[in-house]
Amino acid sequence: MSVYKHILLATDLSAEADQLIDKVKHLAEFSKAELSLIHVIEPLSFAYGGDVPMDLTAIQAQLDEHAQSKMNRFSGLLNYPVKQSHVVSGHTETEIHKVADEQGCDLIIVGSHGRHGLALLLGSTANGILHGAKCDVLAVRVTEKEE
Amino acid sequence: MSVYKHILLATDLSAEADQLIDKVKHLAEFSKAELSLIHVIEPLSFAYGGDVPMDLTAIQAQLDEHAQSKMNRFSGLLNYPVKQSHVVSGHTETEIHKVADEQGCDLIIVGSHGRHGLALLLGSTANGILHGAKCDVLAVRVTEKEE
Repeated sequence: MSVYKHILLATDLSAEADQLIDKVKHLAEFSKAELSLIHVIEPLSFAYGGDVPMDLTAIQAQLDEHAQSKMNRFSGLLNYPVKQSHVVSGHTETEIHKVADEQGCDLIIVGSHGRHGLALLLGSTANGILHGAKCDVLAVRVTEKEE
Repeated sequence: MSVYKHILLATDLSAEADQLIDKVKHLAEFSKAELSLIHVIEPLSFAYGGDVPMDLTAIQAQLDEHAQSKMNRFSGLLNYPVKQSHVVSGHTETEIHKVADEQGCDLIIVGSHGRHGLALLLGSTANGILHGAKCDVLAVRVTEKEE
């Protein structure tokens, strides 16, 4: 029996994201699953409620390019065939659910930071993804590296 | 590589809980993991803020017995060696985290109902378990049966 057919790995491409690689690879191999990747860039203007008094186009383009380059590196580290690699712009949870629905993914894997206090109260990205997902969600606990 | 060593399946023993059985069994077999079960009974008095004007001991004992009997049935359906089977009384998330910590579990599996509206706003049990878990959490989407 194949438990999962198409896994969507949602990655923030942070330093901690590499901790997921071995686990994701083994789960995908075991399930003989297709594997797709998604990284969502939240537009700079989101942070200002859309009312930004300057043109952020050039900076945004640089950020997008940087994200794409980090995604290529991450994809290489996986050493597993990647079906689709999405670097998209928008609201994190919305975009992840959208791609998961469109591609018929049956498992979303996301890194989960063991945050406490206010971040816990506000809800983590992993929680946001679990809310409203139509498929299974695996939250993999990652350890935050000291900067 | 063994992805997980000790899986804790948190079950509400509802009609939908049986939907998790095949998936849990295959994940445990693949990981050659030990499997433990937990069902938490929230005391009747919780619903009344602890201020209950009558003795609920007899009713509570019946509920506990009923839960134990349902757990035995569920355990039988799994057809996989169960290391420990916990039927405990208390606050759901707290008890699950406690047992997971004490037993060194590295994955908690929980059924997740695709609830909307108010239940979504208040947060599901799966979300509650994800909050504060020190290990990975797999939320398995279950379909609610029509009564």
